[in-house]
Amino acid sequence: MKKHTQKRDLSPLPGETSARERIVITAARLFEAQGYAATGINQIIAESRTAKASFYDYFASKELLGEEYLERYGRHHIALITQLMARSATPEAFLRAWVRLILRQLREKKLYGCPMANLRAQIGDESPRLIAKVRELTHATIAVLADYVLEQRLASDSQSAMVTARRMFAAYEGAIHIWKLTGEPAALEDIEFIALRALTA
Amino acid sequence: MKKHTQKRDLSPLPGETSARERIVITAARLFEAQGYAATGINQIIAESRTAKASFYDYFASKELLGEEYLERYGRHHIALITQLMARSATPEAFLRAWVRLILRQLREKKLYGCPMANLRAQIGDESPRLIAKVRELTHATIAVLADYVLEQRLASDSQSAMVTARRMFAAYEGAIHIWKLTGEPAALEDIEFIALRALTA
Repeated sequence: MKKHTQKRDLSPLPGETSARERIVITAARLFEAQGYAATGINQIIAESRTAKASFYDYFASKELLGEEYLERYGRHHIALITQLMARSATPEAFLRAWVRLILRQLREKKLYGCPMANLRAQIGDESPRLIAKVRELTHATIAVLADYVLEQRLASDSQSAMVTARRMFAAYEGAIHIWKLTGEPAALEDIEFIALRALTA
Repeated sequence: MKKHTQKRDLSPLPGETSARERIVITAARLFEAQGYAATGINQIIAESRTAKASFYDYFASKELLGEEYLERYGRHHIALITQLMARSATPEAFLRAWVRLILRQLREKKLYGCPMANLRAQIGDESPRLIAKVRELTHATIAVLADYVLEQRLASDSQSAMVTARRMFAAYEGAIHIWKLTGEPAALEDIEFIALRALTA
């Protein structure tokens, strides 16, 4: 995976975006705009201005690039949620901040839904590697929410904190999908309503 | 769309499945197992044992076949929910029956998630026709749930019934996606928990 760290000759000059970085950014943009399944390696190579041979130096397959995309955007998502929780005085304030962030992404045309769910819907059962990565990142997201639930004393033990956290994440996935299905931004505000009720059960 | 009704010569003999029907059933199986984007017309033609030319007699494009798939499986889903509501004495009983049905589909390896959400995740923004069909069916599903909410006097007017129904459907979408992301059947039971709290708000 971290092949590039061993290839010093491929390192970018200062101020230059590395070819590997251009590939990942281009792939993410295409996966989010047109979907993982509909995006071919040739399009990624063309739009990232990479030589075909050097693409394969970085990623031996589209699947490995998909894995890197998931890792990067899944971790980014977890970091965002963690920041929001740290900055919010109450669970109510955290959920409101989460919805506000999502509505801002929508206004800036940067809301594509959940990277894990979007990719998962496009790989059928044919990529155990990507399915495992989706699971790992979903569990990591739920674990971060469960820590918060425990810290806020909204559950008495880690088992019930995990269940509550799973329901909070279901509130997010549900609202994001209803928005995606209907195109109506009001659906996004249901995250706050539904998750709050899952929290205070 | 219903071109086949005007083509009497293509009608199947009694006991025979029509070519059009074989195409739709094969497409649905492939869309659900490997995804819409990953399924090519040639595979559908081969696996439905159809002549290439007659495929195009029925469906001028994969998009039109996708639309028929959505219409058929979306309506089927709405009919199932309507039946469950009619048979259940209380909202609690309806939600329990809904979860039981989904868990049975899972045991029988017939649970693929929501056809609308799965297809929506795979078409990016490039098929206004399919996006419109997804919206139509999502609205129809929410409308059926809203009628039930009103009938059960769980909302005072149709506006708030629609909001409650949207949240019930978000509970379904959320739980189905958490199951798909984690592979854990317990996530499916959250439909009942979350929707019940949305109902009794």
